[in-house]
Amino acid sequence: MVAELSQLRDKIDAVDKQMVALLAERLALVAEVGEVKSEHGLPIYAPDREAAMLASRREEASLQGVPPDLIEDILRRTMRESYASENDSGFKCLNPELRPIVIVGGHGQLGRLFRRLFELSGYQVRVLGSKDWDKAEEMVADAGMVVVTVPIHLTDSVIRKLPSLPDDCILADLTSIKSEPLQAMLEVHNGPVVGLHPMFGPDIPSLAKQVVIYCDGRMPETYQWLLEQIQIWGATIERISAIEHDQGMTLIQALRHFTSFVYGVHLAEEDPRLEQLLAMSSPIYRLELAMVGRLFAQDGTLYGDIIMSSPQNLAMIKRFHQRFGEAIKLLESQDKSGFKQAFDQVELWFGDFAGRFLKESQGLLKQANDATHRG
Amino acid sequence: MVAELSQLRDKIDAVDKQMVALLAERLALVAEVGEVKSEHGLPIYAPDREAAMLASRREEASLQGVPPDLIEDILRRTMRESYASENDSGFKCLNPELRPIVIVGGHGQLGRLFRRLFELSGYQVRVLGSKDWDKAEEMVADAGMVVVTVPIHLTDSVIRKLPSLPDDCILADLTSIKSEPLQAMLEVHNGPVVGLHPMFGPDIPSLAKQVVIYCDGRMPETYQWLLEQIQIWGATIERISAIEHDQGMTLIQALRHFTSFVYGVHLAEEDPRLEQLLAMSSPIYRLELAMVGRLFAQDGTLYGDIIMSSPQNLAMIKRFHQRFGEAIKLLESQDKSGFKQAFDQVELWFGDFAGRFLKESQGLLKQANDATHRG
Repeated sequence: MVAELSQLRDKIDAVDKQMVALLAERLALVAEVGEVKSEHGLPIYAPDREAAMLASRREEASLQGVPPDLIEDILRRTMRESYASENDSGFKCLNPELRPIVIVGGHGQLGRLFRRLFELSGYQVRVLGSKDWDKAEEMVADAGMVVVTVPIHLTDSVIRKLPSLPDDCILADLTSIKSEPLQAMLEVHNGPVVGLHPMFGPDIPSLAKQVVIYCDGRMPETYQWLLEQIQIWGATIERISAIEHDQGMTLIQALRHFTSFVYGVHLAEEDPRLEQLLAMSSPIYRLELAMVGRLFAQDGTLYGDIIMSSPQNLAMIKRFHQRFGEAIKLLESQDKSGFKQAFDQVELWFGDFAGRFLKESQGLLKQANDATHRG
Repeated sequence: MVAELSQLRDKIDAVDKQMVALLAERLALVAEVGEVKSEHGLPIYAPDREAAMLASRREEASLQGVPPDLIEDILRRTMRESYASENDSGFKCLNPELRPIVIVGGHGQLGRLFRRLFELSGYQVRVLGSKDWDKAEEMVADAGMVVVTVPIHLTDSVIRKLPSLPDDCILADLTSIKSEPLQAMLEVHNGPVVGLHPMFGPDIPSLAKQVVIYCDGRMPETYQWLLEQIQIWGATIERISAIEHDQGMTLIQALRHFTSFVYGVHLAEEDPRLEQLLAMSSPIYRLELAMVGRLFAQDGTLYGDIIMSSPQNLAMIKRFHQRFGEAIKLLESQDKSGFKQAFDQVELWFGDFAGRFLKESQGLLKQANDATHRG
């Protein structure tokens, strides 16, 4: 039996080695594609080409008895690496005439990411750090664009202490709230203004398939090149009003972060043995535990700032707390039919999305379980 | 440029086709491994072999300039498929002398899954459905094992209405609470008793890397073969007391399900446009939305039953609600240093796990983003 098994395993190892070689070849080819795209200013993420390619691979897989989902998952994973490597060949510069870009707060993580992207695209970038304010006037005097990316609670005051900018200079920010910074930018500068919110952390491998939200401020025709440049980097852009953005973020950021925070506090006070909790976890709970735990490996001050950045956040959080209390009453009275009724109403509200989310999460939970290292 | 690109893409397509062929070859080899394992009663999931294999693939990948994480992710994904296909060759029967297995509730999803696994392992299985109670006595008269898997609120009464079983018959259940069913089983039967809780849904591709919790009831020496059989199916088993299990489940199931339920209620009442919320989501929020939304594609009655299955659940939920209210006070007084202090305490409580969870979730969030279909 041992001989039989080890013979089969040798064959599997040989197949895997060929797979590694094929991946090396594929990555090299994609790097060449990256160079062509960079030269001609094509976005690194081409959704149509990707969808068509995946569809034909699925078909070929079926014919050879390989599950189509398997080849799709493998190619998607491989493309992530490819997108990341396409960065290396740089990006076409869509506005070569632009005077220097000044990144205010360019030493922060997000500032460094955008600096790198601008430089990979051939722009001249200057960083205005917290110690450079004595040179600020000089630095922005001939700026083509100023991008503010400082901690959320400093954004307003930093914008207001900017020296006066050239009339045609674009003023932009990358803050995770939009109404207040946009207002401040419009007040201090008479030229073009745009608010941006990159919906990702600074540790992403590339901008492919990421979202950047933008809120128009003034003279949108002057910064269309910037929106296109962001798309060349691979991101999708979404236009929204500052007010709608901030409303959405009360849910997307403030309430979710706060709930995770409270869940962490709750766990620490209940004090279960984490090892044991993990040992008995289903994939979905392990994932939820990871999503809560990851918060506490990050910057508490930043999260506090985001949550306390607006009275709307507090109001949203209080409404959630109240509904939580009302739902508890269903449990206290063991009102199973009331629970079912409320459940069904939410199901109606989600509509088709409930089923879509179930399907989407099933794939993800399987992936989460693939990665489990339990012995 | 178009010619240049399409030439490169043709080459990529050719590489991908070879990849599909290799995958077909690999799956065929793994099916052969499955047959050998089945014949000799080896578990389908062999953690040590898997770890060693991955380590050597990572090394080879590095040497060829392929990112080691890429090949590891691809192989883990492929192995999932392999584990699933190893089911097809059946499993070694560890207790061929066992008289028939009766699955009470065998028409439910989980009952069907276990029926299939027992049958793939060569056991004779009978299903006692809700309409078969007039034949129950006859069906269990020569049973070697009876497995109860009915909705949680019926478990106790179903156990109590079982006809008397042969003295050496093993009585087991698959309920997601353990104290009450275990108590009931010990009361109605004098022979071997064991409580099981499979920590997964019935839609998994295989038991590889899944967890089955077990609580000893009586005469554990008589059902060791069952625990080993479950491991041959690929699962990890975890022994725990019924009380500790149920305490853990107040967190792992009741509180999490209830929080998701309330979040759904909250969303439906706030009524944001879901399409827009998705368009502006970061990968992490999209994931959280999917995890909440998936609940409402499932059975509301089941979730109500789980949450209301014990007074401990209600007490746990109330403590969470209270802590939520206390944390809101920090926001009301804009107490950023109080927030930071609480945050740091939780960070301490998580210890090394915070960083581990961050790392684990980063990989998963990237995978979640790979799968995004946004155009």
